Amino acid sequence: MTQDPIWLDAITFDGNGLIPAIAQDADTGTILMVAWMNAESLAETFATGRAVYWSRSRLRLWRKGEESGHVQTVHELRLDCDGDVLLLKVKQEGGIACHTGRESCFFRRLDGDAGNAVWTITDPVLKDPELIYK
Amino acid sequence: MTQDPIWLDAITFDGNGLIPAIAQDADTGTILMVAWMNAESLAETFATGRAVYWSRSRLRLWRKGEESGHVQTVHELRLDCDGDVLLLKVKQEGGIACHTGRESCFFRRLDGDAGNAVWTITDPVLKDPELIYK
Repeated sequence: MTQDPIWLDAITFDGNGLIPAIAQDADTGTILMVAWMNAESLAETFATGRAVYWSRSRLRLWRKGEESGHVQTVHELRLDCDGDVLLLKVKQEGGIACHTGRESCFFRRLDGDAGNAVWTITDPVLKDPELIYK
Repeated sequence: MTQDPIWLDAITFDGNGLIPAIAQDADTGTILMVAWMNAESLAETFATGRAVYWSRSRLRLWRKGEESGHVQTVHELRLDCDGDVLLLKVKQEGGIACHTGRESCFFRRLDGDAGNAVWTITDPVLKDPELIYK
């Protein structure tokens, strides 16, 4: 029988057995991305020190960087007061977390006034995605 | 007829009409909390420049700070590549975002090795919650 580590008990997974995880650059504080984890991916993340998520589209473990090489080394793992959001402070290999080839997935900023606002793309593409995912 | 602003079209709300929103201190980069928004709370947030969430427990708009006084002034609003997570860069009035009286909800850090880890409370209570919520 496999026994779950007791620290997993503090975590409230949702109805699908998942919890959102924020990846934040450990040095700069930049928020890189948000993805999902299940108990297995979280346990592997903590055991190996590399971010492993659960891909909701592919329905399998997603070892971040497995295709792109853009792995995330986890420096710190935090849990919020309700136990339903994780925060990973990471070192982002290659400086690119987003599948669009940008550092961060949060590259759109809402500009203008409320009635007439637009999403402005503020961050540059650092590497062509076609070169990242060959 | 009320027409939704076109910038809302870029957002993918979940099956309950909600999207998670990360509040990050605009100056320090500290991640303060994660809460949920619906279209109405997001539109009010952008229109007023103050963070308004949707309370999933109380099933109503939650104007952050309405009881505690700990309002969040929104400096920037960002959206991720998938359009399903928001990032708010805020100024946190009172320096306390968490209902426990701490600056951040992410006050627990996972320490130890994988087989024998514990959640360590790393952040001090800045104000007794009983004095915050009178």
